[in-house]
Amino acid sequence: MINNIEIIKAKTTKINDVDFDNLKFGHVFSDHMLECKFKDGKWETPKVVPYQALSLDPSAKIFHYGQSVFEGMKAYKDENENVWLFRPLDNFKRLNISSKRLAIPELPENYFMDGLKTLLQVDNEWIPQKGGSSLYIRPFVFASGNGFHASPADEYTFIIATAPSGAYFSGKVKVLIEEKYSRSANGGVGYAKAGGNYAGQFYPTQLAIDKGYQQVIWTDDNTHEYIEEAGAMNIFVRINDTLVTGPTSDRILDGITRKSIIELAEAEGIPVEVRKLTVHEVVSAAKDGSLKEMFGAGTAAVISPIAGFGYKGTDYDLPELENTYASSLKKRITDIQTNKAEDPFGWRYKVE
Amino acid sequence: MINNIEIIKAKTTKINDVDFDNLKFGHVFSDHMLECKFKDGKWETPKVVPYQALSLDPSAKIFHYGQSVFEGMKAYKDENENVWLFRPLDNFKRLNISSKRLAIPELPENYFMDGLKTLLQVDNEWIPQKGGSSLYIRPFVFASGNGFHASPADEYTFIIATAPSGAYFSGKVKVLIEEKYSRSANGGVGYAKAGGNYAGQFYPTQLAIDKGYQQVIWTDDNTHEYIEEAGAMNIFVRINDTLVTGPTSDRILDGITRKSIIELAEAEGIPVEVRKLTVHEVVSAAKDGSLKEMFGAGTAAVISPIAGFGYKGTDYDLPELENTYASSLKKRITDIQTNKAEDPFGWRYKVE
Repeated sequence: MINNIEIIKAKTTKINDVDFDNLKFGHVFSDHMLECKFKDGKWETPKVVPYQALSLDPSAKIFHYGQSVFEGMKAYKDENENVWLFRPLDNFKRLNISSKRLAIPELPENYFMDGLKTLLQVDNEWIPQKGGSSLYIRPFVFASGNGFHASPADEYTFIIATAPSGAYFSGKVKVLIEEKYSRSANGGVGYAKAGGNYAGQFYPTQLAIDKGYQQVIWTDDNTHEYIEEAGAMNIFVRINDTLVTGPTSDRILDGITRKSIIELAEAEGIPVEVRKLTVHEVVSAAKDGSLKEMFGAGTAAVISPIAGFGYKGTDYDLPELENTYASSLKKRITDIQTNKAEDPFGWRYKVE
Repeated sequence: MINNIEIIKAKTTKINDVDFDNLKFGHVFSDHMLECKFKDGKWETPKVVPYQALSLDPSAKIFHYGQSVFEGMKAYKDENENVWLFRPLDNFKRLNISSKRLAIPELPENYFMDGLKTLLQVDNEWIPQKGGSSLYIRPFVFASGNGFHASPADEYTFIIATAPSGAYFSGKVKVLIEEKYSRSANGGVGYAKAGGNYAGQFYPTQLAIDKGYQQVIWTDDNTHEYIEEAGAMNIFVRINDTLVTGPTSDRILDGITRKSIIELAEAEGIPVEVRKLTVHEVVSAAKDGSLKEMFGAGTAAVISPIAGFGYKGTDYDLPELENTYASSLKKRITDIQTNKAEDPFGWRYKVE
């Protein structure tokens, strides 16, 4: 542990105003946050400070040039008050992979890990214990240096903020397979958790919502024949008993939930294929009845089942199965995450 | 004009600290800025306020989801103290085109135009008169609403900030034709002046700088065979006496300097071709001597001449001509912009 993480406590707590039985996702923020700046060529030692507004010059590059990356994580509290993270080093590594692509300086591992652990100790009371709830953790780095010149900033700010949260989505979603808009380019930043990847999704998603869907299935920008992601999640398709997901690439995020699902499914004896998946194959499988399930996978929702999809003006409904991969895999992962089951993979990480 | 634009004057001025004879680009900011917020479903009336730090919650969506767009403009002061803009309505329209793609609410025209004119009147003293200098104008809109949910914000902030500036680039640049990284996807946001388009360019540009170049020539993400943009500018190539530039698309910005150059060149009798331009064609032309010039075009630099380019490990130098299209077209445009020449196109816009 870094011994000198300074802790500046909030003068009052907001925790008594929070209804922990009715938490939405990411709308209530804990009392403290971790903060450090990159200045004069190096990262300063992180501090725990009260969760508070940030003051930025109007020329700060975050407002103009989109230099920002983030991560999504969750902390869980078990019945013995132990606090758990899920594969946190993978989030740390991916944050730096994202930062590198966005020309943002990479963080030292102990600043991230020790900073996060210290923050969770200070705000321990904010970590919900109720089933389905968790403390959503949002590490992010953005360009706080100033100037209108289109070049990387000379100052960056790293923050970890947290939000006690209920489940992200409720119910099954209907999705639209995208034929016009795209999420990412070959040689672009699609594999990074970069702010700009999300902003570009909002308008096409709104068009899909206007047509009666809740999410977009992203396809490759060149042919729109390959299925790549589901909204802001990775996508899995079950054809007969085989689970299929696309390979990661410079267009597809290397999702931690995605790779955990692949490992878990393989360990459970489910046939898994990581390969390119065409729209044609999914539509054919929907027509002949071999398409059993589709679901999105990501930290926020864990697994988000899909009820049906639209493509070229036709809607395809998925069958309503009794025992789905989606529900059994979601239970397996969340049981591991919340210390309700053995963790043969070594994914769970105790905060102490 | 909107009659009720409130003006809150700065208590002191910074103008006496500024060396107007040695201005860099976008490093010194004027005393005031225009600001208005989109709240409860509508844009509030803009105000002129002191240029000052912005206060934002750490969950403000600009930090996480890259919802931001901007414009670049310039104001010029002629020898009679008249103040001129260049095609400002085109900037206004493009800002809204960008906003729409980023799911940001569009601005009313009079908020933009009357707000800008009021700001320029208040900060009239900040508009440089010296040749080559101008007041760089940066209108931008960003997501200031809060929450970690990946969806459009419920609050936005529109600001126009200004910076008295000298020339953007000096000298000719050496560029690298990109074979791996990309700026934009088909169906993406490349045609918008969205923050994320710029952040994604910084790392590949840094790699090019490390190899001894100053800028990247962007090619299409699918084949890297088509030439699309030069750094953050549009690109023109002169082959023999013909000026060639790529057509605008969803990957290429509809540059105001670009389209002005096309119109000006045509009016001067220069053959202009707006068509797809391949790397192969440019390399062949460099080899057989028919490649006479290459230059970038954008508001900041107006025209930025290219001295040579690298491609697949070979460097190609362009000839040093006496009378270039780059220098004559730059003079023609800046003479129109600064009221030193007739404006048969109706581009110049008097601020009064």
